[in-house]
Amino acid sequence: MSALRFEILTKCPETGARAGLLHTAHGVIETPVFMPVGTQGTVKGLTPRDLANDLNAKVILANTYHLFLRPGHESIERLGGLHKFMSWPRAILTDSGGFQVFSLDSLRKVTEEGVLFRSHLNGDQHMFTPQSTVDVQLAFGSDIMMVLDECLAHPATHDAALASMNRTLNWARDGYAHYLKREKGLHCALFPIVQGGMYTDLRKTCAEALLELDAPGYAIGGLSVGESRELSQEMTAVTAPLLPVERPRYVMGVGMPEELPLYVSHGIDMMDCVLPSRNARNGYLFTSQGKVVIKHAKYVDDGSALDPACPCYTCQTFSKAYLRHLFQAGEILFSTLATLHNIQYFLDIMRRMREAILLGEFPSFLRNALNPYAQANAEEET
Amino acid sequence: MSALRFEILTKCPETGARAGLLHTAHGVIETPVFMPVGTQGTVKGLTPRDLANDLNAKVILANTYHLFLRPGHESIERLGGLHKFMSWPRAILTDSGGFQVFSLDSLRKVTEEGVLFRSHLNGDQHMFTPQSTVDVQLAFGSDIMMVLDECLAHPATHDAALASMNRTLNWARDGYAHYLKREKGLHCALFPIVQGGMYTDLRKTCAEALLELDAPGYAIGGLSVGESRELSQEMTAVTAPLLPVERPRYVMGVGMPEELPLYVSHGIDMMDCVLPSRNARNGYLFTSQGKVVIKHAKYVDDGSALDPACPCYTCQTFSKAYLRHLFQAGEILFSTLATLHNIQYFLDIMRRMREAILLGEFPSFLRNALNPYAQANAEEET
Repeated sequence: MSALRFEILTKCPETGARAGLLHTAHGVIETPVFMPVGTQGTVKGLTPRDLANDLNAKVILANTYHLFLRPGHESIERLGGLHKFMSWPRAILTDSGGFQVFSLDSLRKVTEEGVLFRSHLNGDQHMFTPQSTVDVQLAFGSDIMMVLDECLAHPATHDAALASMNRTLNWARDGYAHYLKREKGLHCALFPIVQGGMYTDLRKTCAEALLELDAPGYAIGGLSVGESRELSQEMTAVTAPLLPVERPRYVMGVGMPEELPLYVSHGIDMMDCVLPSRNARNGYLFTSQGKVVIKHAKYVDDGSALDPACPCYTCQTFSKAYLRHLFQAGEILFSTLATLHNIQYFLDIMRRMREAILLGEFPSFLRNALNPYAQANAEEET
Repeated sequence: MSALRFEILTKCPETGARAGLLHTAHGVIETPVFMPVGTQGTVKGLTPRDLANDLNAKVILANTYHLFLRPGHESIERLGGLHKFMSWPRAILTDSGGFQVFSLDSLRKVTEEGVLFRSHLNGDQHMFTPQSTVDVQLAFGSDIMMVLDECLAHPATHDAALASMNRTLNWARDGYAHYLKREKGLHCALFPIVQGGMYTDLRKTCAEALLELDAPGYAIGGLSVGESRELSQEMTAVTAPLLPVERPRYVMGVGMPEELPLYVSHGIDMMDCVLPSRNARNGYLFTSQGKVVIKHAKYVDDGSALDPACPCYTCQTFSKAYLRHLFQAGEILFSTLATLHNIQYFLDIMRRMREAILLGEFPSFLRNALNPYAQANAEEET
């Protein structure tokens, strides 16, 4: 069916964590993995060679909503698919477009057939159906595609969450049926998404029902929508064990650096978040010594590296004083250097975590990882 | 005195062109050379490794006015100088700050002592004197510094141009005297600047008077201020032969790609301009097939390289369709890729020109270089 194959190398005996290899048509991804976000077919400020040679990212995420609107999936398909379009020879995961449609004001109308929305660019009306979002993502040639799902606002009543979950379930079935008809040797996998709001019974019902699809991987969606971090963890902890052990599990849109090990401890293999790249552009930098808010005047004459422990080009080459200058001057280079560092920081957490799992040391990693961050972040909160 | 040493390798027997080596404390610069502009201590959108490894730029220009205001020359000096601050181990030329002061509205008052101005950032009042701009540039540790000069608006009467030229001349003498007292093994050269508006007699008077300073190099300033291109060429053609044959000659703030060979034919060794980088960010790209205005709808499905003849990362990696997408989407990556290409284009013109001089083929290079550009530019003017 799809070219996707998941191989678990080691399971942590004390937690749900596992280290594996996710084989795709565009290379092997070491898991657990954090996927940098390339919304419009570019991880903002980075070249593909930065991503590959510097960061050694093996997979990035792109947003179907944005690329559907501009330049359009048909154009991307004519140009040879998304990998070729953006010159990214490694793996690509695309979301279904649902999250953007539901989070932007462009939302117009949800029916059983799909969701009618207006473009935030020019107001044009469009419809995403479970089938059409598969078609769009097949046109991209994504290695991992997502089914259309309804992203519920938080908080929601149990009734609303139930109705929404049922719609997501129906869309997943429709999307999957369409996918099975269309996907012939295209090497594109399709992941269903567990919804159910913040209700554990609905999460369970949804997860169990989605197992029928026998998908090569499953996602947990509808988190990071305004709920507490404890609640995101709880929903993940409840849902993950219901998903097939031998298939990759992806939590969408999380999380903070200190949360990454928690998700992994629940048995999550894949994560993505705009946090490292967006915070980078805003001058919020994650370091092994705590968060750095680069605009602070105390860095004006600080000739030291942003993070002495970091091997990235930014930290190996420039001082905090120079980074601050670039930020204050509104220079493009700041975004590039800051993004390079923040993503390196996230990927290095994942790499260290993976090594700990492989060495059977994940439980102590988990204990040690959380405390220093909590202290460091408390120190320099803006 | 200064570490600067100019070595002429070949002179064109038919024109004023020459190919040489400019030895600095931060490496050897092949001349004729075009210097990318890094206004605020960064060539906008490019990393130093892009500049060194991709473009093989040997020297860049930075603006004293901007760096004086932010982060300040004292901060840069404390941080080890401009080379270290911006992690650029190769040569740096800085202007005196005069051009910005005279071209921004911040100008307040010109006296014999210097120029009083207000910061465009916060309105603070500052003064540049012939001495202080030398001090500021010495704090940067620039390989090549420029004397303070008055940049006259165009057009100007002969009387106004004469008065201004005399002021520039006095400032050059004052600045030079100060420089000779201060520069002890600092390896920073100071270039005087020939002014005189668009009057050939004043240009001659100024050039001849500046020879007394026995400077290691001379600049021609006050061009590209609104005059016709023919007039810029004429002023250069008149002035360059008056400057010492064995010293490098620098025309400030020029020019269009098709003009570069003309300046070189007059005996110019160094040029700089924001044109390639600024036009890049605005989506105007120079190619061997003519100018490309990337926003044009005709590129939406154009999978071909921006310039098939160009060896730069942008042209070797991405399609016009992708570049157009990045431009339309306002992505940072566009600026990086476009700047990389445009500067490569300018530097390659210089490299080809230099090779032609060395091979004794400059006259035919000059003839061939001009016509294709004229045609290509006419084709796609917006």
